Amino acid sequence: MPAPNMDLIVSLAKRRGFVFPSSEIYGGMAGFWDYGPLGVELKRNIEAAWWRHIVTVRDDVVGLEAAIIMNPRVWEASGHVAGFSDPMVDCRNCKLRFRAEDLKGPPSEIACPSCGSRGTLTEPRQFNLMFATHVGPVEESASLAYLRPETAQAMFVQFDNVATTQRRKLPFGIAQIGRSFRNEITPGNFIFRDREFTQMEMEFFVPPADEDRWFAYWVEERLRWWTDVIGIGSERLRLRPHDADELSHYSKQTTDIEYAFPIGWSELEGIADRTDYDLAAHSAGSGKRLAIFDEASGEHVVPYVIEPAMGVERAFLTALIDGYEEQQLAREKRVVLHLASALAPVKVAVLPLLRNRPELVERARALTTALKPLVAALYDDTASIGKLYRRQDEIGTPYCVTVDVDSLEDGAATIRERDSMTQERVALGLVPQRIADLVAGRATWEGVAREAPEDEG
Amino acid sequence: MPAPNMDLIVSLAKRRGFVFPSSEIYGGMAGFWDYGPLGVELKRNIEAAWWRHIVTVRDDVVGLEAAIIMNPRVWEASGHVAGFSDPMVDCRNCKLRFRAEDLKGPPSEIACPSCGSRGTLTEPRQFNLMFATHVGPVEESASLAYLRPETAQAMFVQFDNVATTQRRKLPFGIAQIGRSFRNEITPGNFIFRDREFTQMEMEFFVPPADEDRWFAYWVEERLRWWTDVIGIGSERLRLRPHDADELSHYSKQTTDIEYAFPIGWSELEGIADRTDYDLAAHSAGSGKRLAIFDEASGEHVVPYVIEPAMGVERAFLTALIDGYEEQQLAREKRVVLHLASALAPVKVAVLPLLRNRPELVERARALTTALKPLVAALYDDTASIGKLYRRQDEIGTPYCVTVDVDSLEDGAATIRERDSMTQERVALGLVPQRIADLVAGRATWEGVAREAPEDEG
Repeated sequence: MPAPNMDLIVSLAKRRGFVFPSSEIYGGMAGFWDYGPLGVELKRNIEAAWWRHIVTVRDDVVGLEAAIIMNPRVWEASGHVAGFSDPMVDCRNCKLRFRAEDLKGPPSEIACPSCGSRGTLTEPRQFNLMFATHVGPVEESASLAYLRPETAQAMFVQFDNVATTQRRKLPFGIAQIGRSFRNEITPGNFIFRDREFTQMEMEFFVPPADEDRWFAYWVEERLRWWTDVIGIGSERLRLRPHDADELSHYSKQTTDIEYAFPIGWSELEGIADRTDYDLAAHSAGSGKRLAIFDEASGEHVVPYVIEPAMGVERAFLTALIDGYEEQQLAREKRVVLHLASALAPVKVAVLPLLRNRPELVERARALTTALKPLVAALYDDTASIGKLYRRQDEIGTPYCVTVDVDSLEDGAATIRERDSMTQERVALGLVPQRIADLVAGRATWEGVAREAPEDEG
Repeated sequence: MPAPNMDLIVSLAKRRGFVFPSSEIYGGMAGFWDYGPLGVELKRNIEAAWWRHIVTVRDDVVGLEAAIIMNPRVWEASGHVAGFSDPMVDCRNCKLRFRAEDLKGPPSEIACPSCGSRGTLTEPRQFNLMFATHVGPVEESASLAYLRPETAQAMFVQFDNVATTQRRKLPFGIAQIGRSFRNEITPGNFIFRDREFTQMEMEFFVPPADEDRWFAYWVEERLRWWTDVIGIGSERLRLRPHDADELSHYSKQTTDIEYAFPIGWSELEGIADRTDYDLAAHSAGSGKRLAIFDEASGEHVVPYVIEPAMGVERAFLTALIDGYEEQQLAREKRVVLHLASALAPVKVAVLPLLRNRPELVERARALTTALKPLVAALYDDTASIGKLYRRQDEIGTPYCVTVDVDSLEDGAATIRERDSMTQERVALGLVPQRIADLVAGRATWEGVAREAPEDEG
């Protein structure tokens, strides 16, 4: 499938309640988005899949959840106060500000891209991307603080607390999911570049001699997560090692996992070899040596760090784009979202074939109640069965269960699978466990095709 | 049990990795805390228990996850810019600032509580508790924005988007879990009053005529969550209806669920009848009418709102306090944390009786690997069995599995339950499912007492 037009994704996301512009009734807020009833479930499912894979089922990674506002000395030591900035150019005439790299020539030679004046652009000046605030009752320089631009620093700052209280030896990792903030000059492309976003980062501490081996391990392991857990097509994923001149100041080697977005190949996740840069910087900044006993070398060492880091919003956007398909059925077109079951906001929809038959409605509602403790389930009877299927296809619901007139005779219901549109007939009492097993991947789908195409009734 | 001394809880939380002071190596940051490897699991478990109870298993509540930074007009319309403030008094001599309500008399009559000067305190002035920042490249009044002081407003602002995209009719609710920020003058009592905290709030929209019925329903339903789901002793919980003179400006009636903390009876959660205050305020502020068709009355109405609102940190602190017990065993004292299984950071610890017997270690490690996909499990062989039990008791692990020399003969292991210290002998292959069933409450514990007390070997 070619990547769908981004407008289709934005429209679906808004129309079905995945993503709304923040504060929309007040005209919105550039770079800020809210996740609606379906979006919050998809977002939580992505986060849960990452946490389970990175923390829960592993022996060598533990979690952390740190405050967004940290002591400002953290950002001095990390280099963010001095260096986390973009060169900006002001127009003295219209007062607007531009990123120097977005201009089409030297500021002294070109016209202002907004008002067209010549000779009014300033030379580039550094503009820090951290949001600033003040903590405490007095607004003064001593109370200046920042919203974190990345979650990583808390893992370095708390390295010793974690290692000591958890009796950890190298190698081990600390993982965190949480909001970060960057005052981007040009947020955009829907939720691709936001001013507020949710990061999933993991700092894996290794003996310095083992950095290359672990770097290679984590590149492979993370790529496998995208394909096997999140279900992204491998033909739209690629690895791109950074050239030496694009490496961050803290990084010795970085490989991006990129996806073929409608806007072109772009970063989904970066795996960086941060060396001992951060622990050394915080040792110097705080006066507390951040080191650990290394059994292999028999001495205390400052570990090296391999960091897989990603934003949940890009995984979210990728799941929508990669799953989106328009199919021509016998009579009509359907939009279907091929989400992995683990990600789908709704796992099963229960649909009575006739909403004016109380005995069908009653059985369908009872089935929904039985399903809800096992998987995310919903009941819907507000349209014809064909329309109800289309609604669920479009939001990625993997299974629909239809209670029909035959159910009153045979005590069974029809389970219908999203992608194949094939069906199984299952006894009502067995439906909840069957659905739970299918969603968890413990059972295999054995549906058979309908005699007539689905949209022919 | 009497409530334990708060110092014992703070010490346990730090020592075992539940809670660390934020940025501790830089001297910390008052009112900000980080949740360590065990803390983040307990916090996530509390949040999951709330989400499941409030959203997943219900038909009438959906979720939302909004940005922390919203359009500042939200906070003008809600009344927070004008009214979310504390009266503060400055000392002209020592320059410190105090909450007027914390002073022991009128500022004009008393001495400064810090430097002791007389006649140096100012009259009270309003101090807004919202953290301010600037969004966009230019720091000017037009770019002023706030960190949200509550999650609730996003649910009101997005009311129409949610109702429309989800085809909702009254009554229905919108629930959210997320960070909020308040520039408290006097944060303190460990994590009880923070400047950054995680709220769990739900706005339940009802026909105006039904407010009293739904208010009573949610007070009862929320109390039941604290006792039945979170497992807090009902003798330490009470309901306290607000007096008329302490109601918030938006509230017609509020009832707090209070807990008997070591610092006295204090709020865990508030259930407020916010009437149509917020939707009306945002209708006026935005020019977009926030109303919905009410089938009972046959006309569009501005719904009333019943809001159960709580902070995760207080639930976290309550779980630690309420679960903490020091018991005198035959020879030694044990600290045991009686956490509900759903909340425990680790559900099962696998312990080989002898770590120098490779065949025991191998079986114990294999068992851990088999358990991990089902429940949070860990392996520990770094101490004697008695000490390993004490470690797990102290962090609330409900089950330990010991692989001993007999396991090599009978292919079974001993499951030991935390509270009763009784034991079951179970075939190794059946242990994972047995543990999963016990943790999920699908099975009943049938342990028998050891012949000798546990600490006598």
